[in-house]
Amino acid sequence: MEYLFSEGERAVLETPAFAKLALRLPGGKLQNTVMWYRHDGAALRMIAPAASTKARALQRHPAVAVVIDDPKNGYHYVEVRGRAEVIANDSAARQELRQIARRYIGEQADAYVDSLSADPRVLIVVHPERVRLNAGRRPNPARAV
Amino acid sequence: MEYLFSEGERAVLETPAFAKLALRLPGGKLQNTVMWYRHDGAALRMIAPAASTKARALQRHPAVAVVIDDPKNGYHYVEVRGRAEVIANDSAARQELRQIARRYIGEQADAYVDSLSADPRVLIVVHPERVRLNAGRRPNPARAV
Repeated sequence: MEYLFSEGERAVLETPAFAKLALRLPGGKLQNTVMWYRHDGAALRMIAPAASTKARALQRHPAVAVVIDDPKNGYHYVEVRGRAEVIANDSAARQELRQIARRYIGEQADAYVDSLSADPRVLIVVHPERVRLNAGRRPNPARAV
Repeated sequence: MEYLFSEGERAVLETPAFAKLALRLPGGKLQNTVMWYRHDGAALRMIAPAASTKARALQRHPAVAVVIDDPKNGYHYVEVRGRAEVIANDSAARQELRQIARRYIGEQADAYVDSLSADPRVLIVVHPERVRLNAGRRPNPARAV
């Protein structure tokens, strides 16, 4: 059954935060990059150039872990572990990017998307397998155990 | 030769940001967690309970990718890919935590460290292999290529 984000999780996911997307590169190194995104209630949606290291790596190793933290309070964050589906549909990706970009640059979103190069984009859909909300406690490493 | 952070990288690393530490769990899933840290000019230093999933996973798979973003500008960030050394020395870890905690909670740091449980802590030292500074450009995914 599809996971649905809770109200508390959505409160973080709907801030203008960026996602930090961790994935595995060929050879076993990791990448942790900053991404625009939006959520659709059940998944995180992002865009990348089809030729990017990221898009190619995710097709080989779909396991990802994403952190999103409230820009106003770094102790308020969500970690989403899951599987990234890469959808190679340039037109769907650009349509999605209009929605994603609106979160960050508002009315400039359409002009921004129209200004992009013709290089094909892919849609990355992160399906959650485990979601953890931290509602303000000090981070793990230093927490008393 | 040891990598030394540049002046531009240090400007991000010295904000009161938290680190997002990505690592590989046994079985191939990834974890991306929020950590207090400090840099010592050449490496990132963090603390974790010795018994934590994180500390044990890093001993098996030391490859990590860390993102640190300026809380005032999410487009201003550093990604550090490297190798995590786990040092099982509780007393050194607690000493280090006093310095790390001072970055975040100032004069309360010592009282905070003294209040922690007796469970042993380890020191995690991230040795950079590749460092990328993003000085304000829109994030990768949406960037025109």
